[in-house]
Amino acid sequence: MSGVGSFVGIDLGGTKIRGVLADGEGRILASRQEPTGASEGSKAVFATLASIAASLVEEGRAAGRAPLAVGVGAPGPLDAERGIILVTENLPFVDFPLGPSLEARLGLPVKLDNDGCAAAMGEYLYGAGRGADPLVYVTASTGIGGGAIIGGRPLRGRGSNALEVGHMTLLPEGPECKCGNRGCAEALASGTAIAARAEEAVLAASSGGRPTSLSSCPRLGAEEVFREAGRGDAVAELIVSEALAYLGICVANLATLFDPELIVIGGGLCRSGERLFEAVRLAVRSRCSKAVSGTLRILPAGLGEDSGALGAAALAAQAACGDQAG
Amino acid sequence: MSGVGSFVGIDLGGTKIRGVLADGEGRILASRQEPTGASEGSKAVFATLASIAASLVEEGRAAGRAPLAVGVGAPGPLDAERGIILVTENLPFVDFPLGPSLEARLGLPVKLDNDGCAAAMGEYLYGAGRGADPLVYVTASTGIGGGAIIGGRPLRGRGSNALEVGHMTLLPEGPECKCGNRGCAEALASGTAIAARAEEAVLAASSGGRPTSLSSCPRLGAEEVFREAGRGDAVAELIVSEALAYLGICVANLATLFDPELIVIGGGLCRSGERLFEAVRLAVRSRCSKAVSGTLRILPAGLGEDSGALGAAALAAQAACGDQAG
Repeated sequence: MSGVGSFVGIDLGGTKIRGVLADGEGRILASRQEPTGASEGSKAVFATLASIAASLVEEGRAAGRAPLAVGVGAPGPLDAERGIILVTENLPFVDFPLGPSLEARLGLPVKLDNDGCAAAMGEYLYGAGRGADPLVYVTASTGIGGGAIIGGRPLRGRGSNALEVGHMTLLPEGPECKCGNRGCAEALASGTAIAARAEEAVLAASSGGRPTSLSSCPRLGAEEVFREAGRGDAVAELIVSEALAYLGICVANLATLFDPELIVIGGGLCRSGERLFEAVRLAVRSRCSKAVSGTLRILPAGLGEDSGALGAAALAAQAACGDQAG
Repeated sequence: MSGVGSFVGIDLGGTKIRGVLADGEGRILASRQEPTGASEGSKAVFATLASIAASLVEEGRAAGRAPLAVGVGAPGPLDAERGIILVTENLPFVDFPLGPSLEARLGLPVKLDNDGCAAAMGEYLYGAGRGADPLVYVTASTGIGGGAIIGGRPLRGRGSNALEVGHMTLLPEGPECKCGNRGCAEALASGTAIAARAEEAVLAASSGGRPTSLSSCPRLGAEEVFREAGRGDAVAELIVSEALAYLGICVANLATLFDPELIVIGGGLCRSGERLFEAVRLAVRSRCSKAVSGTLRILPAGLGEDSGALGAAALAAQAACGDQAG
């Protein structure tokens, strides 16, 4: 995989599309990022993704390291074999042939994979998880996702939809999730869930409920809720502590099922820092058997925002070089 | 693995110990079963297990098919590498060197493995799961356990404690589990949980609560609760339907995390028949993405009570023949 060739990896997220040009050892040669613009429809999102990929391909060629393949990590469910995004909750795609369309546009092989699977591979090969096996990766962001590496290979499942961590039921009669189920991890512990609880709290405050400083925030995202909690607002504090408790249960369940050596947590919510990791470690200690929790390490993602894109590049490289892992 | 040799497999359960003598293709040549007698202490349980194993070894030798290795499937957590049962909830073992003790007694290599892992392998090789990959196995009995086969190999995890299905949290503030956690699958949906709910209901009835025919049962096990529900007792019916709903959520979470081709369900609760499978299929349909549930098959164990013992024999055979799967 080393030498003059290179690989393009794209991480297609609900809020941003991130692309990297990387060599076969995971060194980033160039990167690009654009807002996803999910509200503008599937054609516009695809155009942005394709233009990021095309410019990275061009840059690779110009530097004498022509890319050999392109990997895309996308939210599921997918038909990874045929390169189709079946349906997504935070993106406007339904039965969208992203792989074939991008291949036609770039003239290069494109490997579509689950975004959690790609990020897990990125962390396993180049990030916090080097050599740790089994490794479970959890992303806590707008949504909640994940991936697992077992015996050096990503666990894909029958249809590349394994590790849909965000749709594990944690509270059977809990709040409704976009997926139609109730009490999913994503409906309880994601950035979107935190923002939804904040809006409910503001609404309650406006009709005589408990007052909260959230009422004076011009924008109500997870970041603002964490900030107001930090400033001592009791309502924001309750929202944050509940969400992190559920994230902890989610991670504890993954530990109980996979008995991993390492769990890596990435995604925007990690910007809340040590508080998140404390909550997760507490849940694991109190809910898992000692045989599982005693040796388990829990670490923040080592590649920051590049886990998914670098992992997608690595999976494309493996596919192109005939090592169809998993 | 075929030819004149044979293998002994032992399934160490909370209520019974089952042993088989099998050839390399999973054909059962002989079997033995004894009550575990868990209340009599670890020495007595080990003596029963060792005597079952010894008599099967003897029988194999007498038939000219001397066993080459012995496999034991035991409830975790384990230190499988060193052959030690660390602690169990339904058995009197703490840090018990079952593997070395049995090797010393029999003069044969002994492979200790997680009981769920062994049963999953049994079903994968010889039972309902032939050729289905990934395969997830769930046992619903006194306790709840499981195993997974991925790429033909059992998912063991770092310390052979993966797939502790019964200790997945399904209801964060739910009833206390023997493990110390709250709202575990085992505390909500196992035979033990059903019996505990029945006892609570009988107690409630005796102090002026809702009357129930359970009050006149001399023994209150899961079997009696299913029977009274079938006869129209509304209290028993509620207990059964709640437990099966939680079992369904448990299985749905496994489907969401593993995206398996097949989920096999074994264990004593399956004697309740189609009702259990209907509840599980309903939960999977309503809680999993269509990409996962659409192609997923859910089947009863094909080997009945022999999944664990046959799988333990197969894992011992793999270990003896150098194919240290997983």
